[in-house]
Amino acid sequence: MDERTAGAGPLDAERLARAKRAVGDAGLDALLIAPGADLRYLTGYQALPLERLTCLVVPASADPFLVVPRLEHPAALASPAGGLDLEVTAYDETDDAYELIARRLPAGTRAFAVDNQMWAEKLLAFQSALPGAQAALAGDVLSVLRMRKSPGEVEALRRAGAAIDRVHRRVGEWLRPGRTEREVAKDIADAIIEAGHATVDFVIVGSGPNSASPHHDVSDRVIRTGDPVVVDIGGTTEDGYCSDSTRTYAVGEPPAAFRELYEVLLRAQTAQTDAVRPGITSEELDAVGRDIIAAAGDGEHFVHRTGHGIGMETHEEPYIVAGSTRALEPGMAFSVEPGIYLPGTFGARIEDIAVCTPDGGERLNLTGRDLVVLPG
Amino acid sequence: MDERTAGAGPLDAERLARAKRAVGDAGLDALLIAPGADLRYLTGYQALPLERLTCLVVPASADPFLVVPRLEHPAALASPAGGLDLEVTAYDETDDAYELIARRLPAGTRAFAVDNQMWAEKLLAFQSALPGAQAALAGDVLSVLRMRKSPGEVEALRRAGAAIDRVHRRVGEWLRPGRTEREVAKDIADAIIEAGHATVDFVIVGSGPNSASPHHDVSDRVIRTGDPVVVDIGGTTEDGYCSDSTRTYAVGEPPAAFRELYEVLLRAQTAQTDAVRPGITSEELDAVGRDIIAAAGDGEHFVHRTGHGIGMETHEEPYIVAGSTRALEPGMAFSVEPGIYLPGTFGARIEDIAVCTPDGGERLNLTGRDLVVLPG
Repeated sequence: MDERTAGAGPLDAERLARAKRAVGDAGLDALLIAPGADLRYLTGYQALPLERLTCLVVPASADPFLVVPRLEHPAALASPAGGLDLEVTAYDETDDAYELIARRLPAGTRAFAVDNQMWAEKLLAFQSALPGAQAALAGDVLSVLRMRKSPGEVEALRRAGAAIDRVHRRVGEWLRPGRTEREVAKDIADAIIEAGHATVDFVIVGSGPNSASPHHDVSDRVIRTGDPVVVDIGGTTEDGYCSDSTRTYAVGEPPAAFRELYEVLLRAQTAQTDAVRPGITSEELDAVGRDIIAAAGDGEHFVHRTGHGIGMETHEEPYIVAGSTRALEPGMAFSVEPGIYLPGTFGARIEDIAVCTPDGGERLNLTGRDLVVLPG
Repeated sequence: MDERTAGAGPLDAERLARAKRAVGDAGLDALLIAPGADLRYLTGYQALPLERLTCLVVPASADPFLVVPRLEHPAALASPAGGLDLEVTAYDETDDAYELIARRLPAGTRAFAVDNQMWAEKLLAFQSALPGAQAALAGDVLSVLRMRKSPGEVEALRRAGAAIDRVHRRVGEWLRPGRTEREVAKDIADAIIEAGHATVDFVIVGSGPNSASPHHDVSDRVIRTGDPVVVDIGGTTEDGYCSDSTRTYAVGEPPAAFRELYEVLLRAQTAQTDAVRPGITSEELDAVGRDIIAAAGDGEHFVHRTGHGIGMETHEEPYIVAGSTRALEPGMAFSVEPGIYLPGTFGARIEDIAVCTPDGGERLNLTGRDLVVLPG
């Protein structure tokens, strides 16, 4: 990734200002943000998480600043962060960066929040450098900002969705009896890049009984005529937004029982994407699909939640899950991906990304949802 | 990665037993290990770090067990972890996995250690579920095991080193005036896979003034005749071991001042690889190169430590850095990568992986270290 030109996609210099206001509103003294999606969202700086501390500090009552190891100072300045009105401070190999940050926080700092994925070694070091202070999660502050996508972000997700759709439309070129899951996955991975992603984030090709393992990866299993095959794929585009779509294929005519299962699943997933609208809660949307699957007698075989938010991370807020009373709002983007899995036999999943709009929902994945039966 | 067949390379069922003994020796009640290199090292299970908790629990005084989300249960059982004598327990979407683990720890648990890269959200959840207990870092226990490589692990690192050497030997095919850093990096990335890596971990191509930015990535800068170019590349092999080697090239005859700088650097790096032996401390090894560079007047331009350990992670213990009095031992593997950087002008770095042997050191990267001047 070129830190100078790839930038952060729809980066908006106001994000840092909004985050700063949110810190104060949450009763926190500062946010501490290590490399990851939060840092890229706020500053456009796409740094690798490594053992040396890189940390954006957003105090409630002072200007934010970015602390980086000396050897990464030129890269940080060359990144979009260097174009923001943001102090970028370097420290040397033998400095204690945690003490350096603790000394710059306001006297009497009582509560700080770290990004949800900050490494434990860094959180414990901050807890030790700020002994009187309470540690919390920045996600509680930032997810509120990040899960409401701007029109530019929705457009970025739409482009990512179109890119992964181009890959699904080509799966028939590669998915054939006699090939292994791994061979098919390799072709799909190449196509994910060709279709306009900067990185391949995951490629699940679960054939035959492996289709019943929701987080199966790939194996050397040889695909056979009659196999159902779950293909769940995603990548990240150059501007940092993620795609994620699942289609279940059949290689030759599948067992009749599989067709029945698939029809139930298709009804559930279609009902769920149709139900997306402002005001419906996560648990209500989850139940729309779960009730249909349960009524068909497969409730115990839908072993995961309906979906996850998506943006600069494949999995982020809002999660569409039983027990979550969060109401959807326009701009929220998330997967709708019910699945039915019969352990050891077969399974299926259908997944689209949906965005909540002012008057309903928009699907960002538009390949057909009917079972695609490929030549066996 | 195929969890069934790729395995963990030189996985050794004794690792879990050694870790358990080390937990007790360290005065801890349990280790809590989320997905990452520690989990792969101990069990062979290569899970993605995601928002749902996956956690290996290693109590000092009971059998270890692995807790996974229901939808990943089949994948965990299919991984090498399923072949160990290890209980694998699934929880459902609406269960509290932290409470589930807390309840299974011995009554009166006072001290637990988490893997160094566990996400903050998970560490805070464990701190909350175990309110009376002290949190520490598992790295203090596990790095002692992981940094002493077995002969099988050294062989895996040797294979990884040979693979990245094959890429460096081909750099002249791609590095030419008129091409951008990004174009060259793309060719190198493809070659990293072709050479026998499962993943490309990083490709730094820093040309001209970008060679003076140690953690430069790539950019759209067009390479010009006379440019020095730092090429720092690495990947991970199918069995989970990492490569990392840097060579600095010149595209056409570089400035005379660059040749002088390079000669100093080469003397420093050669002296350091020659100095590797049991008993020398990290800071002594760092000083061997730093003193040579300082004597030539470039001390302030060697802005980073000498190196980092390498194994199932590119950066791990032992770090070769001022202030570290750790004595090297046979089986320790680490980079030796001094650099000299003149900001805005040019810079150079030479990096080999070295392994400490019973009577000295072995370099795992064997491409020539003299400056390679490519056609300009």
